[in-house]
Amino acid sequence: MSTHELAIVVLAAGKGTRMKSDLHKVLHPIAGRPMLEHLLASAEELSPKHRVVIVGAGREQIETQLGERASYRVQEPQLGTGHAVQQAEDALDGFDGDVLVLYGDVPFVKAATMRAMTDRLHESDSPAVVVLGFEPEDPLAYGRVVADDAGRIAKMVEFKDASDEDRACRLCNSGLMAARKSDMFDLLRRVGNDNAQGEYYLPDIVNIAIADGRNCAAVKAGSEYEVAGINSRAELAAAEAQWQEEQRDHWMAEGVTLRAPDTVFFSWDTELAPDVTIEPNVVFGPGVSVARGALIRAFSHLEGASVGEDCKVGPYARLRPGAVMEKDSFVGNFVEMKKAVLGEGAKASHLTYLGDATVGPGANIGAGTITCNYDGYFKYRTEIGARAFIGSNSSLIAPVRIGEDAIVAAGSAVTRDVAEGELRMVRAEQLVKPGWADRFHDAMKKKKESEKK
Amino acid sequence: MSTHELAIVVLAAGKGTRMKSDLHKVLHPIAGRPMLEHLLASAEELSPKHRVVIVGAGREQIETQLGERASYRVQEPQLGTGHAVQQAEDALDGFDGDVLVLYGDVPFVKAATMRAMTDRLHESDSPAVVVLGFEPEDPLAYGRVVADDAGRIAKMVEFKDASDEDRACRLCNSGLMAARKSDMFDLLRRVGNDNAQGEYYLPDIVNIAIADGRNCAAVKAGSEYEVAGINSRAELAAAEAQWQEEQRDHWMAEGVTLRAPDTVFFSWDTELAPDVTIEPNVVFGPGVSVARGALIRAFSHLEGASVGEDCKVGPYARLRPGAVMEKDSFVGNFVEMKKAVLGEGAKASHLTYLGDATVGPGANIGAGTITCNYDGYFKYRTEIGARAFIGSNSSLIAPVRIGEDAIVAAGSAVTRDVAEGELRMVRAEQLVKPGWADRFHDAMKKKKESEKK
Amino acid sequence: MSTHELAIVVLAAGKGTRMKSDLHKVLHPIAGRPMLEHLLASAEELSPKHRVVIVGAGREQIETQLGERASYRVQEPQLGTGHAVQQAEDALDGFDGDVLVLYGDVPFVKAATMRAMTDRLHESDSPAVVVLGFEPEDPLAYGRVVADDAGRIAKMVEFKDASDEDRACRLCNSGLMAARKSDMFDLLRRVGNDNAQGEYYLPDIVNIAIADGRNCAAVKAGSEYEVAGINSRAELAAAEAQWQEEQRDHWMAEGVTLRAPDTVFFSWDTELAPDVTIEPNVVFGPGVSVARGALIRAFSHLEGASVGEDCKVGPYARLRPGAVMEKDSFVGNFVEMKKAVLGEGAKASHLTYLGDATVGPGANIGAGTITCNYDGYFKYRTEIGARAFIGSNSSLIAPVRIGEDAIVAAGSAVTRDVAEGELRMVRAEQLVKPGWADRFHDAMKKKKESEKK
Repeated sequence: MSTHELAIVVLAAGKGTRMKSDLHKVLHPIAGRPMLEHLLASAEELSPKHRVVIVGAGREQIETQLGERASYRVQEPQLGTGHAVQQAEDALDGFDGDVLVLYGDVPFVKAATMRAMTDRLHESDSPAVVVLGFEPEDPLAYGRVVADDAGRIAKMVEFKDASDEDRACRLCNSGLMAARKSDMFDLLRRVGNDNAQGEYYLPDIVNIAIADGRNCAAVKAGSEYEVAGINSRAELAAAEAQWQEEQRDHWMAEGVTLRAPDTVFFSWDTELAPDVTIEPNVVFGPGVSVARGALIRAFSHLEGASVGEDCKVGPYARLRPGAVMEKDSFVGNFVEMKKAVLGEGAKASHLTYLGDATVGPGANIGAGTITCNYDGYFKYRTEIGARAFIGSNSSLIAPVRIGEDAIVAAGSAVTRDVAEGELRMVRAEQLVKPGWADRFHDAMKKKKESEKK
Repeated sequence: MSTHELAIVVLAAGKGTRMKSDLHKVLHPIAGRPMLEHLLASAEELSPKHRVVIVGAGREQIETQLGERASYRVQEPQLGTGHAVQQAEDALDGFDGDVLVLYGDVPFVKAATMRAMTDRLHESDSPAVVVLGFEPEDPLAYGRVVADDAGRIAKMVEFKDASDEDRACRLCNSGLMAARKSDMFDLLRRVGNDNAQGEYYLPDIVNIAIADGRNCAAVKAGSEYEVAGINSRAELAAAEAQWQEEQRDHWMAEGVTLRAPDTVFFSWDTELAPDVTIEPNVVFGPGVSVARGALIRAFSHLEGASVGEDCKVGPYARLRPGAVMEKDSFVGNFVEMKKAVLGEGAKASHLTYLGDATVGPGANIGAGTITCNYDGYFKYRTEIGARAFIGSNSSLIAPVRIGEDAIVAAGSAVTRDVAEGELRMVRAEQLVKPGWADRFHDAMKKKKESEKK
Repeated sequence: MSTHELAIVVLAAGKGTRMKSDLHKVLHPIAGRPMLEHLLASAEELSPKHRVVIVGAGREQIETQLGERASYRVQEPQLGTGHAVQQAEDALDGFDGDVLVLYGDVPFVKAATMRAMTDRLHESDSPAVVVLGFEPEDPLAYGRVVADDAGRIAKMVEFKDASDEDRACRLCNSGLMAARKSDMFDLLRRVGNDNAQGEYYLPDIVNIAIADGRNCAAVKAGSEYEVAGINSRAELAAAEAQWQEEQRDHWMAEGVTLRAPDTVFFSWDTELAPDVTIEPNVVFGPGVSVARGALIRAFSHLEGASVGEDCKVGPYARLRPGAVMEKDSFVGNFVEMKKAVLGEGAKASHLTYLGDATVGPGANIGAGTITCNYDGYFKYRTEIGARAFIGSNSSLIAPVRIGEDAIVAAGSAVTRDVAEGELRMVRAEQLVKPGWADRFHDAMKKKKESEKK
């Protein structure tokens, strides 16, 4: 592993007009996380000393996202990739390590690949520039990295300038480059803009170095997908699909049953144990962990939730952030949990909202139970003791505490604490009107008939 | 564009036995709309003067669907496509323009293609018949349109009668034809039925015209999909899939994020703005529009609904016809809206039914709220004022009006209007029985034990 | 058809370590049924006299699953497939018919294929062993069955020992074998373990028989999928996907509309009638039948349910075991039924739990109705008469009976029977506090303000 210090320069000045979005392109999420954060998380494994992000339109959004985790330089006007990297120079004043150029819209470059690039800089042939190449299934009109089998570059060539022989070379230029800082900026100063667009192209540093008699080396990406750029919503969706497919394969290999893998959507940080079973149509938002033996049934939606061993979830369960299901507990259909703990073996089987609540072990929450946790201004907590039984259609008006083994009668609106072993019933007299319904039916049928006329 | 008058003749007499359905084949819906209506909507762009539908078994269903938008002729017995078109003749008495033959089970022919066919009739070489050809990926056993590069037809040939040379021709016969009315019916009268099935085939008019020394011309369909016939539920599903895929690509190109495009199903008339985000597993029924910045979360189902700017919908939201969400409003999980307006910034977060209701701006509808809009005979309206707070598990028994800033206590069944700034509580005394629950538990445990013995 | 008696020997001793599961590999379900049960159901069509399952680790799980339907022999240590089959010999003492060797993790072999194998044993050339071969799209490194066009085997050869000529043969060894019992065990005794793994391989019996001058014959499987082995969760998911795809095609051919076939998941025993329409995202658990004309809307989940003619289900309906919907009845969104009958034309449109209940014809169950069927110890029944009207947000506290044409007022918690034509209302006085809400808003706003400081 390289022991040289590293600065990363992330190009993110492009507006991303093909996205047709008010949100900056590099902040569009994949698997619930902005693509720029995917990229930085990988780069972070190399412990860079500096992170410089080159920004343009929409830079406030990027600066809000990353805050002090990076420094920023504005590229204005935007005169090409070489020009973009040049903006980073003064941010690296006094730094004397390696520079790795990344792209905010190429988010899935693996840390191992980045490390292979920077390590390559310090091999015995001491290349001036290391280029990340890739071999696409169909090379299309990509620029070519003409290199020998050892990765020693003969030249970089744009597709339009490439000879048939060049084009037969399948190694294409991803755009990612690494160089010692001094090489990087020395070479960049010599890049010209004598081309149709009048732009300064970063890849030109390779040909300039080679002309100087320096070595330049190619490192090959693990897959085409690793260096795929994202410029449209369709490419965003394709990247998401690719990411999801990899995760599904990963979790199945780890011993998770996915009955219909294509219908399960993971978040970037989902954690699953072996012998978890996931039925069709389940969506994981960020921050979910599921323990061994748990069953996540169809149409469930989990975010920020912890599911214990052998729990049963759903179908149609919605676990929101702060939902904690302890071992063997059960959340059934049309039940929502938020900032709520369901104790071991406790059940909330149907049509329930548990918000800002603690439910003790073995408690039974009847159908239609609502924790009334909000008065329009503040939120309050509900505490339900072990083995308590909450009758159906009850409203627990927080703050309120239900004791162990206590019973709340169905249909009650409970505003005061219920002691252990106590029964609380909030129920009016049953008012009976014999024959009333028959008279009502008669009257309504007549009215309906008269309206038809 | 052609300025000649147009009559369309739509063949829809076939029973569609492979569908195994009581519903006529051409009325099976794709993207929520009968396939016949897809076809007619495209034809309507050419402003036809006459629409004649040739019907057979199940004609009542077709006539009920189209009513006075078309005239009908019965083909009985059914002696082939040529015979079918002949039935239209007397419906076109006095008409002297072009006739375009369409098929009720070939619903996706584009208006531009139809227009290309009728325009072609009036080019300088004045073809007697214009045939719509297509180039399938695999020509299989389709009849061939043997034509030169300019589309001038040498002959039409059934696959079984085709020479190897004919079969090498990739242009296949879609069955769609256009001709001047006089040509169409003159030629049809000369078509014979000297073939294995004893049927009168429409394509024979082409060879007859050519034998007369007339020109016949081919126009090429934009894609194989455009002229695909639908004869089974599998073909129906394939057509739906193709349609959905095109729409997903369309909306992504327009700036809509589809996190998992394959899991989102649009209706034929769905309208979306840029920067709408749609999570996995969302179904749109007819009549939905979604404004800029809105988020449609997973497992939501929308029909006949209008979603305003920056609204949040779902997960598990069900918007039924007449649901109107104004700007910044929120409909959460297990909430159903029907003929209801949710004002700006208002929220109905969980387990609620809003039917025949108006909710003012900034109002908060608690979990488990039900608008009781139906007495078994009639429906009544609920009106909720701005900033009102409806406590959880409340029943609002319509007709009822809740004033601005009013509060309804949780668990209330409200039958009378609540004034502005008023609190309404409908709640019985809390009945407490200390120790009752403990005694109950003891008794039940004994009973359970005794039953086991 | 063979009239010879049959014994099947099912190899299921392998641990299935690649599944990373506490559940034995052959018990993992496909379409809701353990793969071993799929295999046995097919074998049962041949009415075998004996079923011997060779077990190893996890044998208790298999014995619990099959009980007395099979006899068991333990293979310990596990010295190869030939050694595994040998364990069955003493279980077949006195039996003198055919032996068919099956694999618990190869669950989709069709009965017709098994029968073709045993029938082949008794053709005039009287083969000693019948091998089931298959022709994979890509033969990879499978062992080859070198046979002539008539299926007469020249030799069996492991891929690593195969010549180029052998490898050009596309018929591969599935591992399934049939032989007369005496041949099977006589040949097995002569199989050696002189190979790298030191194992006794079942296919060796073929080469031994051929060396004896006996005939051996190959039968070909209908498809590669029929003999696919399942050794990982990914293979399990692929088998499920293949099974589902076949079922979707099957039901569409039978006249069922699947708007998005890929999103509908059937159980092994789902029964559908023609003109059933199924919208996207529907999951069927075991034991569901749906009658003609019924509509199953999106996001519905059905298990152990019977849906009558022209019923409407969902969206978001959950039918659990014992749910019976009679003709023309309707279950709407966020409604759960369990052990409940919904009479002809009855409706439960929203947010309801019907458990242990009978609902009469034409009854209307209001939104938010809960049958309170459980007291923490026992379950009780609710009976609702024909045409009864249950107002919204009511709790019916079982055991309870609501008479015909009776009305329960919205928000009632009903504990006593309601007579025919009677109105029952359980509702407290409306408590009104004019101006209270305004004062509350003022106080809370101040509190909120003070907390910010």
